[in-house]
Amino acid sequence: MQNFQIKIPTNLVFGKNTHHQIGELIKPYATKVLLHYGGGTVKRLGLYDDTKKSLTAAGIPFVELGGVMPNPRLSLVYEGIELCKKEGVDFVLAIGGGSTLDSAKAIAVGMCYDGDVWDMFDGKAQITATLPVAIILTIPAAGSEMSPNSVISNEKLGRKCGMGSDLIRPVVSIVNPEFFTHLPKSQLGNGVADIISHIFERYFTHTKNCDITDGLCESVLKTVMKNALIAAENPTNYEAWAEIGFGGIIAHNNWLGVGRDQDWACHGMEHELSAYNDVAHGAGLAVLTPAWMKYVYKENIDMFVQFAVNVMGVEGSFRDPEAIVLEGISRLEQFYKRLGLAQSLSALNIGEDAFEEMAKKTTGAFFGNETGRGSFKKLMWQDVVEIFKLCK
Amino acid sequence: MQNFQIKIPTNLVFGKNTHHQIGELIKPYATKVLLHYGGGTVKRLGLYDDTKKSLTAAGIPFVELGGVMPNPRLSLVYEGIELCKKEGVDFVLAIGGGSTLDSAKAIAVGMCYDGDVWDMFDGKAQITATLPVAIILTIPAAGSEMSPNSVISNEKLGRKCGMGSDLIRPVVSIVNPEFFTHLPKSQLGNGVADIISHIFERYFTHTKNCDITDGLCESVLKTVMKNALIAAENPTNYEAWAEIGFGGIIAHNNWLGVGRDQDWACHGMEHELSAYNDVAHGAGLAVLTPAWMKYVYKENIDMFVQFAVNVMGVEGSFRDPEAIVLEGISRLEQFYKRLGLAQSLSALNIGEDAFEEMAKKTTGAFFGNETGRGSFKKLMWQDVVEIFKLCK
Repeated sequence: MQNFQIKIPTNLVFGKNTHHQIGELIKPYATKVLLHYGGGTVKRLGLYDDTKKSLTAAGIPFVELGGVMPNPRLSLVYEGIELCKKEGVDFVLAIGGGSTLDSAKAIAVGMCYDGDVWDMFDGKAQITATLPVAIILTIPAAGSEMSPNSVISNEKLGRKCGMGSDLIRPVVSIVNPEFFTHLPKSQLGNGVADIISHIFERYFTHTKNCDITDGLCESVLKTVMKNALIAAENPTNYEAWAEIGFGGIIAHNNWLGVGRDQDWACHGMEHELSAYNDVAHGAGLAVLTPAWMKYVYKENIDMFVQFAVNVMGVEGSFRDPEAIVLEGISRLEQFYKRLGLAQSLSALNIGEDAFEEMAKKTTGAFFGNETGRGSFKKLMWQDVVEIFKLCK
Repeated sequence: MQNFQIKIPTNLVFGKNTHHQIGELIKPYATKVLLHYGGGTVKRLGLYDDTKKSLTAAGIPFVELGGVMPNPRLSLVYEGIELCKKEGVDFVLAIGGGSTLDSAKAIAVGMCYDGDVWDMFDGKAQITATLPVAIILTIPAAGSEMSPNSVISNEKLGRKCGMGSDLIRPVVSIVNPEFFTHLPKSQLGNGVADIISHIFERYFTHTKNCDITDGLCESVLKTVMKNALIAAENPTNYEAWAEIGFGGIIAHNNWLGVGRDQDWACHGMEHELSAYNDVAHGAGLAVLTPAWMKYVYKENIDMFVQFAVNVMGVEGSFRDPEAIVLEGISRLEQFYKRLGLAQSLSALNIGEDAFEEMAKKTTGAFFGNETGRGSFKKLMWQDVVEIFKLCK
C-alpha cells in the first residue's frame, strides 16, 4: 500500500426531504448566494421553488444564473463570475447535476483569482482560494458533490479539461434520491456508467497489497450494478436510487482510491470525445471502457481475472485466465446494453475523422508535449487511436 | 436506507515515515501543545524524540503529560486539564493508541467547559466546544483517530462511559503502520477484536436496503480478518498491518454505518466488564460477541445467514439456515482463538459475582432508569446476565 492523505470536510446530508434544510445548512458560510442551475428540470421538480423558500426563510439573499448545459461551458462560467462580482456574492449554490456543480466550482474559483479562470484548467495556475460552494444534487453520476474536481468545456478551443484541489470540495452537499426517481432511462445509464468508471479508474492498478481498497471497489461496483438494473426496471424505486446515489458519492470522494496508483485514461479519452462530439460523458465511457480493457488487460492479467471473478461473477478454470477475463469484459458490455447504452462510437454518430486529433489531444502530442495517459498501461496517441478503432 | 448525515474534517495522513510531518501539519492550529502519551513504548519506538524534534522544528512550544493507561482514567484527565490551564495550552497532541487519544479528547473538551468534564460522559452536559486534538497512532484498534468518540474510566465510580460529538474528531491523524509492527501478539488480537466489533455493531441491523454499507462492512471485515492472520504469523509484515490500520480507521469513522440502525450492545456490556475487571477492551469483546450472536440471531436469521455466508465463507444448504449461522459463529470463535484471544470469561479471570450488577449498569437498571441496550435485540438486564452466563 502506498502512503496517502485524505481530508473531506464536506457535510453530506443524504435522504428524503433533506433539501429543505439548505438555507440553515449554508447560513454559516453565506451572506449572499448565487443560485446556479440548468434549465427547466429543477423547476418542474419543485426544487427551484423549495430552494428559494429555504434561502428566504434563512434570511439569505440571492441572485440567479440558469442555463448550465451538460458538458458545462466556460462562457457561462465567465458570465457567473461577472454577475457575482457585480452583486457581491460570497457563496455559490448549485442545484442540479455534476455539470451545474462543476460550473459553480469554476465560478467560485474564478471569483478568487485575478487572471482568467481557464488558467486553472490548462495548468497555467493552481487553485489557492475559492468561494465556498454547495449542491443539491438531482443526478447521481459525476461524484462532484464530494470530489475535489471540476471539468469545464472551452467552446472556443474545443477542449474539455479538469481542475482539482481539496479547496473545491463542497462545504455542504445535499443528496436526496427522490429527485433521481424522475430521471429518464438515458440518464440512469449515463450516470451509472460514469459512477462505475470512477471506480474502474481507481481499481485497475499494478499496486500490490491494496486488499482494503480492492474490496471496497468491488463491493460498491457490485452494488451499483445490481441496483442500476433494478432502477432500469422500476425507475421510481427510491431504495435502488439511494444505493446508486450513495455509490456515486463514495465512488469519487477517493476513499476507494487511496494508497494505490490510479489510471484515468478512459476519462481522458472520453473528455476529448465529448469535446468534439458533445456526447454524454457516461455514454462515451460505456463505449470506451470495454475497448480499453481489451487493449490493456495483458499488462496485468491477474488484476483482470480478479475483476471478472469478484465483480462480474465469472466462474471457470483459472488455468485459462484469458477466457475468464474476456467473459468478464463481455458481461460488462451486456450490463451497459441492458441499461440502454450505445455499444459503439458509430451508434453515437461519431466517425473516424477526428480519431487522430482526439488521440493526440488526449496524450498531449497535439500540443507538442506528449506525456501519455494512464498508469495501468501508459497510452501514447497511437494507442488511443487503436482503442478508438476497437470502438467503431 | 435511512436518511443520514456525515462530515469528517480530519486530515488523515497514512504511511511510512509520515509522523515526521506532525509539526508542520498542526502548526495552523497550535500555539502551545500538550504532548500526551502513555509509558515507555513511545520512547522505545523513538516516536517521543521524533515528535519533539518535529514540534521544535516547526517552532511550536509544548508541555508534556505521560502516564495514560489502557482504559484511560478520569484522574489523569483532570491532571491534564489543570496543566493545560496553567500552561496556556491550546492544542492536545496524543502519541499512542486509542486510550491516549481518548484521554486527549477529554482534556481538550474539559478545557472548554466550566464544570466537571465527567458531565459529558454521564449525559449531564453536551459538548459545545473543544481544543483541537491530533494523534500519531501506535496501535490500530479503537478507531478514535477519525471517530467522534472518547471513552473514559471513572475509577471512583467504577464506571466506563463514552461521549460523542463531531467536534472531537481529530483535526490531524497520522497513522504510520511501521509502529504497529512492534506490537506484541496480544495487542494484535485485542486490536483486531475491537476493529471488527466496530463493524459488527454497525453491520447487524434490521434496516433493509443497505446494500452499499452491507457490502462495505463485509469487505472490510474479510480484509481485516485475513490480514490479522498474516500479521499473527509474521508480526513485522508492514503490508498486513497497513491493511489492519486502514481497516481500523474506516471501521469506526462511520462510513460503514450510515443509513442503518446500529446496535452497540456488545460495546456497552464490555465497558462494564472492563470497568469491573480492567480487562483489555478487545479481549472482552472477543468473549462477548459470539455469545451475543448466539443469544440474538433468531431475531433476524437472514441477517446472520448473510454474515455466515458473505463474511465467514460458510457453504451449505440455505434450507437449514440455523446450521449455517452456527457454523459462521463457530468460525468467528476459531478466528479469535487463532489470534490467541481468550474464549471465556473464566479464562479472563472474571467470575460470576458481579454479573447482575454489571448487567444492571449496562442497561441502566442499576441507576433506576432501565433503557436497555442495543437495537438488533433490545437487551434488558436479565438478557445481559444470560449473555454473561453463555461466556462463563
